[in-house]
Amino acid sequence: MPPEALFEESADDTRTAIMEATYRALTDYGYADLTIQRIADEFDKSKSLLYHHHDGKDDLLVDFLEFALDHFEDNVPFRDDTADERLRTLLDAVAATKPEADEEFVGILVELRAQAVNDDDFRDHFLGSDRFFHDHIVDIIAEGIEEGTFRDVDPEQTASFLLTLVSGAMVRNTTGNQVAVERTRAEIREYIDARLLAD
Amino acid sequence: MPPEALFEESADDTRTAIMEATYRALTDYGYADLTIQRIADEFDKSKSLLYHHHDGKDDLLVDFLEFALDHFEDNVPFRDDTADERLRTLLDAVAATKPEADEEFVGILVELRAQAVNDDDFRDHFLGSDRFFHDHIVDIIAEGIEEGTFRDVDPEQTASFLLTLVSGAMVRNTTGNQVAVERTRAEIREYIDARLLAD
Repeated sequence: MPPEALFEESADDTRTAIMEATYRALTDYGYADLTIQRIADEFDKSKSLLYHHHDGKDDLLVDFLEFALDHFEDNVPFRDDTADERLRTLLDAVAATKPEADEEFVGILVELRAQAVNDDDFRDHFLGSDRFFHDHIVDIIAEGIEEGTFRDVDPEQTASFLLTLVSGAMVRNTTGNQVAVERTRAEIREYIDARLLAD
Repeated sequence: MPPEALFEESADDTRTAIMEATYRALTDYGYADLTIQRIADEFDKSKSLLYHHHDGKDDLLVDFLEFALDHFEDNVPFRDDTADERLRTLLDAVAATKPEADEEFVGILVELRAQAVNDDDFRDHFLGSDRFFHDHIVDIIAEGIEEGTFRDVDPEQTASFLLTLVSGAMVRNTTGNQVAVERTRAEIREYIDARLLAD
């Protein structure tokens, strides 16, 4: 399943309809076997709209990633909670604690992220996406320090560490062992208790 | 650069020569643009040897991964050091602290791991590879607890957490931001000090 409400406006909006077709084709074929034709086959409107908007498969996929990131940026959860609650909610959301629902979408992200090894457009996207999540975690940690619930840690170092953990959990969740991800999650909680929470 | 001595026997041994050709073709083209023909172009011996040994690109790549894993299994470093030293050496080696030398090889691993999202042969390989590194870290932690340098933590949970961090560091090292990886590494050291080292 795609993230909640990701394609909410699909009935009216051409870009959203293209993105939804891209999502379906990605889940059916994966990156390696994906073609523009296979995306077009999932698209109900005029195919020329799809070709008109994009220069090729990779251009369309980078646009798909930007579309999904915009959605996350607009839907940052629970701004009213405490820093500790917000941090745990964010880590749960990004690391996909509901594997049945999120594994498909996270699998797409893992596959597309691997394209960034050799492709600068994909790399630029993931640099921007990492920056967004990093800055968001930094804000939460700085807030927690200010409100006295977190210790006086280095927010940049802690955020980098947590985002690296999340990247690893996404990979292992979709290409490895669920038990390892459950154990990782348990240790993340102990890490937050031991290193972040104030006495 | 490939890991040290990975293709040491390449002058005599056909399989090693095929693996070295595969490595070169992967670094030149990446997974998506790799073909058996491009691997054959890097191969100095008779092409029929290459086709004879493998059923196709993915079969050859899974064999390449097994070949590299065998190499790591045979070259586990510094068995005589303390548990703490062995753990830090292993984490450094796997997370590629020498980016200039290791980024190329780690990039290949990140790309091939993403194939495991949709391909069971790749997934089986990485399950086995995760199991090897997991068990190795568990052994080191259990040894550290026994020799009294580590606290009485859960070795399975700690090993899962560290291996997830390493997976994330490999991804970020090759598709993201080096500064983030440096910060992650600094926090891994503080994590080991805070959660693992006995008082």
